[in-house]
Amino acid sequence: MSEHGQRLARLRDILKRRSLYVSALPNIRYLTRFTGSAGHVLVTPDTAILFTDGRYRSQARRQASGVQVVISRGSPLAALARMISEQRLRRVGFESQRIPYARVRYLRGEVTRCRFVPEVDIVSQMRVIKSAPEIEAIRGSAALNSAAFADVVDRSRPDWTEARLAAEIEFRMRRLGAEGAAFPTIVASGSHGALPHAEPRPKTVERGSLTIVDHGAILSGYCSDMTRMVAWGEPGATQVALFGAVLEAQAAAIDAIRPDVECRTVHSRARRVLSKVRIAGVRLDKAFVHSTGHGLGLEIHEPPHIGPRRRQRLQPGMVITVEPGAYLEGVGGARVEDVVAVTDRGCEVLTMTPRELRVVAA
Amino acid sequence: MSEHGQRLARLRDILKRRSLYVSALPNIRYLTRFTGSAGHVLVTPDTAILFTDGRYRSQARRQASGVQVVISRGSPLAALARMISEQRLRRVGFESQRIPYARVRYLRGEVTRCRFVPEVDIVSQMRVIKSAPEIEAIRGSAALNSAAFADVVDRSRPDWTEARLAAEIEFRMRRLGAEGAAFPTIVASGSHGALPHAEPRPKTVERGSLTIVDHGAILSGYCSDMTRMVAWGEPGATQVALFGAVLEAQAAAIDAIRPDVECRTVHSRARRVLSKVRIAGVRLDKAFVHSTGHGLGLEIHEPPHIGPRRRQRLQPGMVITVEPGAYLEGVGGARVEDVVAVTDRGCEVLTMTPRELRVVAA
Repeated sequence: MSEHGQRLARLRDILKRRSLYVSALPNIRYLTRFTGSAGHVLVTPDTAILFTDGRYRSQARRQASGVQVVISRGSPLAALARMISEQRLRRVGFESQRIPYARVRYLRGEVTRCRFVPEVDIVSQMRVIKSAPEIEAIRGSAALNSAAFADVVDRSRPDWTEARLAAEIEFRMRRLGAEGAAFPTIVASGSHGALPHAEPRPKTVERGSLTIVDHGAILSGYCSDMTRMVAWGEPGATQVALFGAVLEAQAAAIDAIRPDVECRTVHSRARRVLSKVRIAGVRLDKAFVHSTGHGLGLEIHEPPHIGPRRRQRLQPGMVITVEPGAYLEGVGGARVEDVVAVTDRGCEVLTMTPRELRVVAA
Repeated sequence: MSEHGQRLARLRDILKRRSLYVSALPNIRYLTRFTGSAGHVLVTPDTAILFTDGRYRSQARRQASGVQVVISRGSPLAALARMISEQRLRRVGFESQRIPYARVRYLRGEVTRCRFVPEVDIVSQMRVIKSAPEIEAIRGSAALNSAAFADVVDRSRPDWTEARLAAEIEFRMRRLGAEGAAFPTIVASGSHGALPHAEPRPKTVERGSLTIVDHGAILSGYCSDMTRMVAWGEPGATQVALFGAVLEAQAAAIDAIRPDVECRTVHSRARRVLSKVRIAGVRLDKAFVHSTGHGLGLEIHEPPHIGPRRRQRLQPGMVITVEPGAYLEGVGGARVEDVVAVTDRGCEVLTMTPRELRVVAA
């Protein structure tokens, strides 16, 4: 059976003859291979049907595996509602975290004899544990991402703007075969780096200060995500100290990753390292304003969430980012991020780029 | 009053002392200027509050206009729920088309004394009519998009792949100052063009056949969207006829645009032209598998929807795409797309690139 067929079979095992309306596109892709931007899947004990529109007629036929394809002239959602009526289904689950409220209301109005029941996001939960081919796909995406970074930093000039660097990296990813960027590339230099999610500016990178470079590729559908620190010109002692503390926090977090460890433990290891360092009057755990990481795969943000109060336990096959950071207003920011796969006994870092602060002569 | 302040005042006029939870990020940006990737806005008769997390502390303070900012250590949604409790609000509307089902359930569970009421998407409806500065922003985005197209086609070589062309266009948009692409660029050559939403392949463009090039930029937050047809090497008679029919259909649709005309009329004008042409045994209206266009602005797809059965009437200030196409399996596809603003007496095409089939020597 194909990997997609196995997934559908596994989903049916979990559903135990319940029916499920799968609405989230990455879940649809995971189950059926279909990559279109519009579609709905209905999984019943006996059938699995993809509803989409005329724009995707040939694509759906070519891609979709293990499901019937219905191309509707009108709304594909209306076609799904009709099918639920025709099949006289009395109970259909839906992905309550990933479906707009109004869509559930519409279905309840259209098929009054069927009970629509909110489910936890079953397919996303299946996706948390990656198969060996999926881990290889993420490794490939990470390798491409690293190659783009190396190429652009090697060719970079100190008169490039943040926006130029971001554009060059995304172009390089595409030229190396990526479908696109997994998220908008962040390049944030000097005090702009104090914004963890800074947008690249049309401003030359600040000489001798830390620049955050955070980017990811999509390759064969799978995301990568990496943050490295670059300085164009030798950075000062404060900057080096900030970077060093974050690098050490990241190492401590990675060191904690193994099966059965709670996600919050990984986070607290990073925090603990930062809590011992004070820069510009700030204890760095106070400057660590986000969580330590997140799962990734077909989407750039997936469960598990590596943050405080997260008791979910790591399991072999999970793939997560480890990305502590520290942000000091007026000074700048530092973050170091790798993609890490949980293995049977510990973990494997899938990101190959060295983590050192990269200093480019300026 | 700033434009954003006016928008908030206008929203309050519509709400008539009701409260509204604004959850869609483009709606939040429209009302407050905040561009972060996570946030919630609560508008009450007396206050407007943006809830976000520590990553956006400085950015929210710097950007957000006319609203209080609450940075929460835990979940910003929990902070919003607490505020609803503290303010003893008894009724809060929500954007039912743009909010996940589970989030409404969460709020109803947290604040049992408040009634959460589904509303039509009030802010999106406000956004349908663009102000003069918004139309100028879209015009600027379209001009940038056209410049990127011209530059890349001029420099293109017949041995470039579809993927390379897409990457070059997106790079050029960035280098010209765009924040990014408004959607994944489509380059689809030869029979691949029969897929309306084709993904660019790592395959050289087919000589002497139609290639669909469909791309858009985001500039200052505003989207553009254009499709042009290119042939590397002289195309054959069938291809030229297909292109000609679509071009004529587009002209007929644009010609119909003026205030008070129903959206479906614009669509049927394009269809009517295509219904008179038969290529490869297919009447082209049967090969026109999507609708004629969509609004655009802060998002690439906004109301109104220019399709069959759409009775909404055009009004001055609406900005829409006009993009009929025809797709013939085994032959290829053609689409021509411009961005058009509805004016007091008719319309203005904002896209400046000539619509002719561009033939590049190969």
